[in-house]
Amino acid sequence: MNKIRIGLVGLGRIGLQHAMNIAGRIQNAELTALCDLDRVKLEATADKLGAPHRFTAYEEIIACKDIDAVVIVSPSGLHARQIAGALNAGKHVFSEKPLGVTAAECKEAEKAAEANPDLTFMLGFMRRFDDSYKYAHDKVSAGEIGKPVLFRSYSQDPEKFIQGAIAYAPHSGGEFLDMAVHDIDLARWFTGSEPETVYAIGGCYAHPEFAQYQDGDNVSCLMKFKNGCMVFLFAGRTAPHGYNVETEIIGTKGILRIASVPQKNLVEVIDGYGVRRECSGNFLERFGMAYVNEVQEFVDCIIAGRKPLVTVYDGTRVSEIAYTCKEAFERGTLATF
Amino acid sequence: MNKIRIGLVGLGRIGLQHAMNIAGRIQNAELTALCDLDRVKLEATADKLGAPHRFTAYEEIIACKDIDAVVIVSPSGLHARQIAGALNAGKHVFSEKPLGVTAAECKEAEKAAEANPDLTFMLGFMRRFDDSYKYAHDKVSAGEIGKPVLFRSYSQDPEKFIQGAIAYAPHSGGEFLDMAVHDIDLARWFTGSEPETVYAIGGCYAHPEFAQYQDGDNVSCLMKFKNGCMVFLFAGRTAPHGYNVETEIIGTKGILRIASVPQKNLVEVIDGYGVRRECSGNFLERFGMAYVNEVQEFVDCIIAGRKPLVTVYDGTRVSEIAYTCKEAFERGTLATF
Amino acid sequence: MNKIRIGLVGLGRIGLQHAMNIAGRIQNAELTALCDLDRVKLEATADKLGAPHRFTAYEEIIACKDIDAVVIVSPSGLHARQIAGALNAGKHVFSEKPLGVTAAECKEAEKAAEANPDLTFMLGFMRRFDDSYKYAHDKVSAGEIGKPVLFRSYSQDPEKFIQGAIAYAPHSGGEFLDMAVHDIDLARWFTGSEPETVYAIGGCYAHPEFAQYQDGDNVSCLMKFKNGCMVFLFAGRTAPHGYNVETEIIGTKGILRIASVPQKNLVEVIDGYGVRRECSGNFLERFGMAYVNEVQEFVDCIIAGRKPLVTVYDGTRVSEIAYTCKEAFERGTLATF
Amino acid sequence: MNKIRIGLVGLGRIGLQHAMNIAGRIQNAELTALCDLDRVKLEATADKLGAPHRFTAYEEIIACKDIDAVVIVSPSGLHARQIAGALNAGKHVFSEKPLGVTAAECKEAEKAAEANPDLTFMLGFMRRFDDSYKYAHDKVSAGEIGKPVLFRSYSQDPEKFIQGAIAYAPHSGGEFLDMAVHDIDLARWFTGSEPETVYAIGGCYAHPEFAQYQDGDNVSCLMKFKNGCMVFLFAGRTAPHGYNVETEIIGTKGILRIASVPQKNLVEVIDGYGVRRECSGNFLERFGMAYVNEVQEFVDCIIAGRKPLVTVYDGTRVSEIAYTCKEAFERGTLATF
Repeated sequence: MNKIRIGLVGLGRIGLQHAMNIAGRIQNAELTALCDLDRVKLEATADKLGAPHRFTAYEEIIACKDIDAVVIVSPSGLHARQIAGALNAGKHVFSEKPLGVTAAECKEAEKAAEANPDLTFMLGFMRRFDDSYKYAHDKVSAGEIGKPVLFRSYSQDPEKFIQGAIAYAPHSGGEFLDMAVHDIDLARWFTGSEPETVYAIGGCYAHPEFAQYQDGDNVSCLMKFKNGCMVFLFAGRTAPHGYNVETEIIGTKGILRIASVPQKNLVEVIDGYGVRRECSGNFLERFGMAYVNEVQEFVDCIIAGRKPLVTVYDGTRVSEIAYTCKEAFERGTLATF
Repeated sequence: MNKIRIGLVGLGRIGLQHAMNIAGRIQNAELTALCDLDRVKLEATADKLGAPHRFTAYEEIIACKDIDAVVIVSPSGLHARQIAGALNAGKHVFSEKPLGVTAAECKEAEKAAEANPDLTFMLGFMRRFDDSYKYAHDKVSAGEIGKPVLFRSYSQDPEKFIQGAIAYAPHSGGEFLDMAVHDIDLARWFTGSEPETVYAIGGCYAHPEFAQYQDGDNVSCLMKFKNGCMVFLFAGRTAPHGYNVETEIIGTKGILRIASVPQKNLVEVIDGYGVRRECSGNFLERFGMAYVNEVQEFVDCIIAGRKPLVTVYDGTRVSEIAYTCKEAFERGTLATF
Repeated sequence: MNKIRIGLVGLGRIGLQHAMNIAGRIQNAELTALCDLDRVKLEATADKLGAPHRFTAYEEIIACKDIDAVVIVSPSGLHARQIAGALNAGKHVFSEKPLGVTAAECKEAEKAAEANPDLTFMLGFMRRFDDSYKYAHDKVSAGEIGKPVLFRSYSQDPEKFIQGAIAYAPHSGGEFLDMAVHDIDLARWFTGSEPETVYAIGGCYAHPEFAQYQDGDNVSCLMKFKNGCMVFLFAGRTAPHGYNVETEIIGTKGILRIASVPQKNLVEVIDGYGVRRECSGNFLERFGMAYVNEVQEFVDCIIAGRKPLVTVYDGTRVSEIAYTCKEAFERGTLATF
Repeated sequence: MNKIRIGLVGLGRIGLQHAMNIAGRIQNAELTALCDLDRVKLEATADKLGAPHRFTAYEEIIACKDIDAVVIVSPSGLHARQIAGALNAGKHVFSEKPLGVTAAECKEAEKAAEANPDLTFMLGFMRRFDDSYKYAHDKVSAGEIGKPVLFRSYSQDPEKFIQGAIAYAPHSGGEFLDMAVHDIDLARWFTGSEPETVYAIGGCYAHPEFAQYQDGDNVSCLMKFKNGCMVFLFAGRTAPHGYNVETEIIGTKGILRIASVPQKNLVEVIDGYGVRRECSGNFLERFGMAYVNEVQEFVDCIIAGRKPLVTVYDGTRVSEIAYTCKEAFERGTLATF
């Protein structure tokens, strides 16, 4: 069986991780090309990972005859255009979230996906590929917890990264678009339903800098979904303990909690501070294997000719919902979908 | 030092527990009189607990010269009138929640308390007297978690008691008045603030019987408090695992969780179902010592001449808030306080 | 029903706790007399707790006609003689452990108990009256974990009390007699069997002061019980986290752990140190209710005329076993029982 | 950089896992050859994983010019001879434990390693490469828990695999050699010391079949190490809950526990059985990534020219210790090392 030859675009933090995974951790794939504006980083990374082709222009990598698929890890504002470009150039595409930063961009990506039905397109909602989330979803799907009553999900970034968050604030789109999208995706995936109404609140509890962008350092929203399920989401940037992504699904017959203790590993420390679990430090530490699993799934889908779990429409829908939450937050009123 | 002589009204489940506590678990108190309509139960209980005076009419017990204080554990609709009656008869009063079932009733109780400033009045929000809640409140008061960002509190009754809940539904006032009042009291106590807006949702996920009373079997609400704190409350009647009261306070510098595992005791069972903690079965099992502590505090306040932590106004305010939540839930709109 | 009138001997730390419990927390009991050498403390405590009779001589309290029972909380070396004295004076007796500090003393107490079969005698192995230990024992008795394979029990005192432990070292009898007796009692109670062989090791890991008394600051032993059960006990004086008493019983069909997280209460703290439970600080904090329950059981046994769970022979047997462990430890050889 | 070309010997369960890892999960390595007696399985696996060379005779694979290194996952009785053969043929060697099944075999492997100092030899004590064990070891090495006082380690296999264990009993060497070797390795690694004495007990609690091989279904031992550390090991074949490997290191300043809850993943289930974590089902589920990490370390050592953490002498020493434990168990006496 031939390996899927992958070209990767964007050597930021996640891009670099994806590149390393493709080079050494993904079965039936090889890292064939890299693309980044920074030529020094490009060459050094390509040398280290053994990638033969190197490009500084996106047009070149998608024109490269030696690659079958493109993995897009560029800035969010470029996603939609690059997705369309690669699909129309005949490449399978895996893109990090979000699909696009405007409704129009999302539609552009949708159109390209529809025009190329034989190509595999997949969006990187990596949490769905985390072993624990998958295990929980299987249980929900099997009816083990009955009918979903309340879906609660938190995304908390560590306070220690706050300077980065403040610097990125003008471009982040706000906490709902930047952070809660993953929880929105999970809510739709676990409930199999869509939101109907939302009330969103929050504010700047520690860092007033976010207010100028109509954003907060901690926000939350309560949504009623069409199937009746209550959905409560919380996103915060001031977690004292580390990187905390946790989810609870209360059903009529059982309850599941995923990572309610955001433990770093299986070590328990007992000392003057009590009996304690240290926490995950960042998203790569928590979701490192999910990043491997999602690209493995992308490669497996290409090989098997099956459609990925996450579609282009999921990308559009999650962005729309996050945008409505953001508006509800800014206006302080109830919003409907 | 003379013991405080207590007359207790109402020998239902909680009343009986209070009577046993006063007879044998409260320091500097004695159970001097009992009052209940059921003469057989009255005599049997009084004999067993050694209470010399027995009454079937409320007017008689508050007229009894041998008692200093009255503990009211009668049906909710009688609370306000009995509180006023006892205070005006010169007795100290401890009453189970709620203060009253209408705003007018609450005002009646307030007036009686104001007219008798030298008498001790205390309302039974027992959670404040649970060791774990007290410990957490001390930490919050000491500033250990910084500024409160999110207050989340759950009250879940076991599914196995659902027939009783359905039978009581016409009189319960709905989940916000019947269950969430404790969480509302905690939210005010922990944040030191008052609600500004509320959005409330929920429904009948397993038991359609509640719908006819404009109630649900599971409900939730998201409130914005005046100090900016987000407050999310959830009340449910279908808990598969037992009696679950848990609270989380996320602050800018730390997070506290009280009873996030609603464990029955310190035993961990490891078997084919995994590593597990069995859960509290009911509120008396969970809050048994809090029921002792609160009446002890009442007695200590009488002796020391100090004012209890919970005032008559707390009772009014919590009822008002719960009523507004109920209205918001019924209308499906945002409500303001 | 008449209350049991109790005279208490010894107002040290545990004695004071027992006195307060009898005065206000034990049903059907009253604190009628106190006895202590320190007259100032005696009078102050008796005034505060409302005890009418006060004695400085043991002979006087056991001669007092107004008491039915004696609770002995004096220094260990006085236990056996006082037990015999009180029984022979016609009083029911509850004594703190140990029964005696020599085999001869234990036999003296046994003889007095045998000579007074109508009087209730009970030894204070309070762990058996802790709700969690009782719950676990019920499960084991019901066969829920099958046949016991390994019984493991730890008793760890906090490092912060080390100066007291060093000061008391010449009189403590060593860690097996001073600390492990509770674990030995539990091992016999849970397995329903007796030890056959023991290997005991340990040393002074942080505090060389104990070596001069042939003792260690941390010791352990592995015993084979007659029914085949393996028993591993560990006793330490240098716990960094607080007071830690935990037990595990591995059976062929299930495993139980009691207090494997020695949590202070139900509060979980999440901050820069991780997700953590603070620990019990001392034995009164951990076993406060067990001290109430055991004396309640003593009183209930007197009233009902039934025999307590813990007999005088349990006291003798546990002391003998601890002494053999101590010898094995000192000699470094395998010992048989 | 050229990839390390690996030939793997033995396509049993672990062998197959190693083969898949080398083919797709190990950086800078490629699966070049496979060797197994079963030609059908050999060809199918080689086809699936893309391994060009296939052998049914060990002599052939070590003679193959296209491989740099051999990974040995054959039956235990072949290890020593195959290690020596491969080293003497100029190949780097990674072998699963044990090094050999007799002292003579271990010496044979030692001699071959000494004769080929430029070749990398590594033994597969995979627990050292588990993230949690590594994290804990780093803390111990950094002095965070002070001086080790007690090292406790459990290896428990699920009861559901008991038929396999019984079938393998004649060849397993007994629980100390078959299971406790990993704990012995950890004890030496964490304490940096060697055993001095051991007392070992146990028996057949559920399955008398093991008795005929002088083995038990559950055994334990207490060892005194030369640095004074107490070491308690427990190995069992009847775990009701799954595959449980847990370790505790009590130090004078802190305590670490690794996997004291042998959780399958981060999902917590709350239902009629309480609040529970499901358990790891088998060693591949628990140590899947450790199997990847250890071979990655082997490859990295070859490339970097550094010596692996685990030496041939560790293999010999662990086998010797396990054998002495086994003798102590069989004789029921104290043994010295």
